[in-house]
Amino acid sequence: MSTKELDNFKNSGDYIQSLDRGLQVIQAFSEKNHALSVTDVSKLTGLSRPVARRILLTLQHLGFAESENGIFRLTARALSLGYAYLASNNTWSMAHPFMRDFVAKTGESCSISILDGTDILYVARVSAKRIMSINLDVGSRLPAYATSMGHVLLANLPEEELEAHLDSFQYEQFTDKTITSKEELRDVLKDVYDKGWGGVDQQFEEGLRSIAVPIRDAQGKTIAAINCSVHAGRISKQMLRDEFLPVLRECSNNISQAIASANSSPHL
Amino acid sequence: MSTKELDNFKNSGDYIQSLDRGLQVIQAFSEKNHALSVTDVSKLTGLSRPVARRILLTLQHLGFAESENGIFRLTARALSLGYAYLASNNTWSMAHPFMRDFVAKTGESCSISILDGTDILYVARVSAKRIMSINLDVGSRLPAYATSMGHVLLANLPEEELEAHLDSFQYEQFTDKTITSKEELRDVLKDVYDKGWGGVDQQFEEGLRSIAVPIRDAQGKTIAAINCSVHAGRISKQMLRDEFLPVLRECSNNISQAIASANSSPHL
Repeated sequence: MSTKELDNFKNSGDYIQSLDRGLQVIQAFSEKNHALSVTDVSKLTGLSRPVARRILLTLQHLGFAESENGIFRLTARALSLGYAYLASNNTWSMAHPFMRDFVAKTGESCSISILDGTDILYVARVSAKRIMSINLDVGSRLPAYATSMGHVLLANLPEEELEAHLDSFQYEQFTDKTITSKEELRDVLKDVYDKGWGGVDQQFEEGLRSIAVPIRDAQGKTIAAINCSVHAGRISKQMLRDEFLPVLRECSNNISQAIASANSSPHL
Repeated sequence: MSTKELDNFKNSGDYIQSLDRGLQVIQAFSEKNHALSVTDVSKLTGLSRPVARRILLTLQHLGFAESENGIFRLTARALSLGYAYLASNNTWSMAHPFMRDFVAKTGESCSISILDGTDILYVARVSAKRIMSINLDVGSRLPAYATSMGHVLLANLPEEELEAHLDSFQYEQFTDKTITSKEELRDVLKDVYDKGWGGVDQQFEEGLRSIAVPIRDAQGKTIAAINCSVHAGRISKQMLRDEFLPVLRECSNNISQAIASANSSPHL
């Protein structure tokens, strides 16, 4: 959906503005912003205070939020909304056994994400025992241009879509290695496409490096990316490439095959 | 929030009906109902077809749903809504290391849930490698009266709230062992309260048995329940009670302590 199409839709009689705004308010809550006043929500969303207040009160009365002294927090019931997707989509649960196999073989974490706007969105994750980071749980987002999965997903876009993405990024310098130029990113993505995998070394966060490969459907279309992320101090770039990449490729192939056979089955 | 309070709120000027309805439509999607037409959504939610249609179109244009030939599915973006809760609440991520420890010691799965209306709602889960069931993923719900965590949560409610819950259950007979009488359930819950743990043997599903204990806050109030669920054919009731219960209690105590010290820290 392009911005223009969305604008057109908003002018149609079918658009329900209150629903749009309500979902914006839910998404205003985050690790950093876990307890918000009406004024906070108004600032984060750009909605007026009276509108923000009515939405928060409605969420509270429906059980999705709770409040104490004018400070609102989401309740666990909000999980039901994300669960509606997970329960209705068994693709990523099919991937789990293969991801576990990867983690067992390498001792490192493994995630799957898809492209959603300018972000990658985590849809599955199996973490190695040593790491527990809620920041990278299912449902979290990272900017596509600074991550290995983002590179893989971008590199496999049709030309026009890729250019639109390159234009829409807000290139932020996360570390001194972050790529912040459209031209440089285009060159890197060309290389990622040619070699069939992407690697990012501390471009998003100091001390974090990762490699990623595509997950393809039966028609060969890239539908997701799978990665392995490690602490830079423990695993060298060479080890990632020489030892982990082949295991990750095997994992990705197994998942692609499982998806293809599930989709060709008349029972699914 | 009682039904009466909710009704009163709905008659106030603050209630946003479209938001309520939109969230109902999102929750209409499930494993069973993963691809829905306007008519399906209308039937599942009780909303009129024109209203259901406008909500689905709005969700589609906001990127939360996609459609093909009039059939709608949720997209991964819906995960962002549940993630907003997870990211804004680190209580359950603190519990993870202790749950993993439990799974490592017993080889069985471990979950945490809270009471949400008449259901238990899963907020954390670490599964043993042999089981992969999306039905019991974070965000899923089960009827409180037929589960060990539900029994623990209900047993620790104040008298009046317990009675209101006993009255509001739609006692469904899932197996020939399901408790479907309010009086019998009250007796069982009394026993659960006295001994400090709950056990359910195939009351919800044939072949599934589980034990659960409370997780308490610093004031001793039960804020969640933690369980261990096993295949009845592999683990006897005696083994659950004699070998797993002490490990589960230790796990629950560790989590309660972690929550208490996190809440007493000025940095959280």
